Amino acid sequence: MSRICSLFLLVWTLAAEPADWIWSGRYLITMDAQHRVIEGGAVAVRGDRIVGVGTKKEIDAKFQPAQRLDRPEGILAPGLINTHTHAAMSLLRGVADDVSLQDWLNKFIFPAESKNLSRDYVRWGTRLGVLEMLLGGTTTFTDMYYFEDVVAEVAKEAGMRGVLGETIIGFPVADAKTPADSLRFTESYLKRFRNDPLVVAAVAPHAIFTNSDETLKAARALANKYDAPLLIHVSETKKENDDEMAKRHMTPVKALDALSVFNGRTVAAHCVWVNDADLAVLRARGVGVAHNPSSNAKLASGVAPVPKMRAMGIAVGLGTDGPAGSNNDLNLFEEMDLAVKLQNVSTLNPQALSAEAALEMATRDGARVLGLEKHIGSIETGKRADVITVRTDRPNGVPLYNPVSQMVYALKAEDVRDVMVNGKPVVRDGRALTLDEMQILRKAAEYGMQVSRSLK
Amino acid sequence: MSRICSLFLLVWTLAAEPADWIWSGRYLITMDAQHRVIEGGAVAVRGDRIVGVGTKKEIDAKFQPAQRLDRPEGILAPGLINTHTHAAMSLLRGVADDVSLQDWLNKFIFPAESKNLSRDYVRWGTRLGVLEMLLGGTTTFTDMYYFEDVVAEVAKEAGMRGVLGETIIGFPVADAKTPADSLRFTESYLKRFRNDPLVVAAVAPHAIFTNSDETLKAARALANKYDAPLLIHVSETKKENDDEMAKRHMTPVKALDALSVFNGRTVAAHCVWVNDADLAVLRARGVGVAHNPSSNAKLASGVAPVPKMRAMGIAVGLGTDGPAGSNNDLNLFEEMDLAVKLQNVSTLNPQALSAEAALEMATRDGARVLGLEKHIGSIETGKRADVITVRTDRPNGVPLYNPVSQMVYALKAEDVRDVMVNGKPVVRDGRALTLDEMQILRKAAEYGMQVSRSLK
Repeated sequence: MSRICSLFLLVWTLAAEPADWIWSGRYLITMDAQHRVIEGGAVAVRGDRIVGVGTKKEIDAKFQPAQRLDRPEGILAPGLINTHTHAAMSLLRGVADDVSLQDWLNKFIFPAESKNLSRDYVRWGTRLGVLEMLLGGTTTFTDMYYFEDVVAEVAKEAGMRGVLGETIIGFPVADAKTPADSLRFTESYLKRFRNDPLVVAAVAPHAIFTNSDETLKAARALANKYDAPLLIHVSETKKENDDEMAKRHMTPVKALDALSVFNGRTVAAHCVWVNDADLAVLRARGVGVAHNPSSNAKLASGVAPVPKMRAMGIAVGLGTDGPAGSNNDLNLFEEMDLAVKLQNVSTLNPQALSAEAALEMATRDGARVLGLEKHIGSIETGKRADVITVRTDRPNGVPLYNPVSQMVYALKAEDVRDVMVNGKPVVRDGRALTLDEMQILRKAAEYGMQVSRSLK
Repeated sequence: MSRICSLFLLVWTLAAEPADWIWSGRYLITMDAQHRVIEGGAVAVRGDRIVGVGTKKEIDAKFQPAQRLDRPEGILAPGLINTHTHAAMSLLRGVADDVSLQDWLNKFIFPAESKNLSRDYVRWGTRLGVLEMLLGGTTTFTDMYYFEDVVAEVAKEAGMRGVLGETIIGFPVADAKTPADSLRFTESYLKRFRNDPLVVAAVAPHAIFTNSDETLKAARALANKYDAPLLIHVSETKKENDDEMAKRHMTPVKALDALSVFNGRTVAAHCVWVNDADLAVLRARGVGVAHNPSSNAKLASGVAPVPKMRAMGIAVGLGTDGPAGSNNDLNLFEEMDLAVKLQNVSTLNPQALSAEAALEMATRDGARVLGLEKHIGSIETGKRADVITVRTDRPNGVPLYNPVSQMVYALKAEDVRDVMVNGKPVVRDGRALTLDEMQILRKAAEYGMQVSRSLK
């Protein structure tokens, strides 16, 4: 008997496919095209790829892993995708709240940035933001800030995926005197991070009202030259819409389209004040929308017409926006939950958006927004292995009737237990493996004191 | 020298006032009338009372405590007050989401309750809810459900403060065939929990549209006979408002006032659809409003005119509502954050409500709503010692510029570290001291499976 067993084991060992990891859990939410949820599911990973998805029994039978992680109380899900943020602004978290937008910018954010921004400041601020995001289950972030090469270095050091663009803006900033400087910087940055496994270098003109038409056209040309995505704020506020209407007799969307800014992969953040003609343009040009529920609500920007966008087939992802007053954290669990609540309450329809839709926006559709749908956004064989486990054994996680609605409405970023990006574990049992948490918190507190002094 | 020190110590020991506890932290948010925030603050507690509030230096000089808890990275704040929930419904957390209100009630909640409700079910469901609330910094809850004597027993066992009322409703329920049964039950329950240090027994007619006028009047008479608060749902949905207008040519508020229901301490949950005349009535009668942002948003009920209520002097507290679809958790940190966001976005004014206002609603004004403002809601000498500590040393908590806005916009229920109710520690370092967490989670999961089977 024992000999037969040994023989069987030998045959299986020879026949089984090798894998680096098998992760298994109580449920596996695939977010594949059918939105399959597998009870007792498992995923096999080899190198940076997912090589198998199925029940634990099926995966165990097929693969021989070097290591395994079993979370019998956990939900496995695709890593969450943040389609719009300014991570280093976490150093300004809560520096000014409950003030007017003008005071917030002119009395706090601009002075704080002009007096403190440096490569080191951005390095530590991004580390703080990346740490918060990874611990909360976000595996990809989309960033627009300054010293973006440093942001890219931090992403790589942390093992996090990023679509990252240097902000191009029509006034002097810490690392550029003119937009031309920023465009030159962007070109060398695009060359440096070409074909990086984790970093997608992007071109990021700030907005239509902060850049000349020439700069916007040059940004599009640069993006197309390097086949890079273009990141831009679009129609965030009523004022932006009204100002462009007064100036050009066109909405920001129409004006950007007239400048050919949408002629190539574009990620448009916000799109709150968009009419039906604008939506038709966004759809026709294949523009992806980064929807930021917390920021749009807290700053009183308005409620983006997300259900209509989705019904038209426009890719809509979720973003946190920056954590310096627009939002005060980088938490996609809260964005999923709030996305539904904002739509429901603003339409007085309790079925305006569903948990399923919110999770889709945070995963599969976020990938579409970024043009990365072939690589990330779902747990499917052949895709990059960006996977999280979320615990369901805390009081807010029981009982568990429906893993998708539990993820969106009941579980929290703090329930994320393990995170893998590109096949590599970066969070294990709630602790970061690639970043020095204590050092980051200490340095962030120091920068906080420096900022406070600079504003006195 | 040493002799002088010993002498000094002896004199101090004799002179110092005794205390059971000194809790100290980086900041102490008092929520007193001046909303003082004390850097390096401390609170001394003796028995069930706060006996001293000041800087750590002042408190250390004045009191000799039996035990002390120092949280140099923590914020001390008044325990949070949940002014409206149905705690035992946590056993139905997520049983049905993203369905119409009719389907939610008729296909899920009513069948699930009619097939499963029992004293034991309510006991374990309330334990689950109380556990989640205590771990998240809520020290007082306001509950309307069935078998409310069991809810009161759980509150006492957990060491949590509760304003608790048996739901009186015009159809047969698990523990009453008629409203008359519920009224009888309520009277004996009021007698049993009279003068309890933690439980305030209340009278809780469900709503105007689910009770006869006679029942509502009888409920008010009973509340007045025992000087008990009356809890009731008021103008939650447009339908409720429209139905009463059609039936009585009066709004629900006007109709309840005509029935004299507001003639005595009243906690009105929701008050979403209220006009200026309704608000004048609520103010004139001293009615407290329990505002439930998550529930009102998720169920698409609407946005209550909170800033207007506050400007008129109406006491407005925060509530989670039940966690079975109206909300899927019992998390007052999320309610504070969402209260601001809902007001800002619905008015397009980023200063519609502030962090300060949100924290006031969750503490000081919550106490006013319940008629407990002399006892709880702030950290002041003479009040009952309901105190929490919240850690600020996780990535979402740094840097720390303003402890109040950090509490509301950046910190989470999961950052709560210690909780004291009525002078007694009930949570220490994130672990419940009075409840068996593992057993509660196991039993809750079992009840979840039972509910699932019953709905098949």
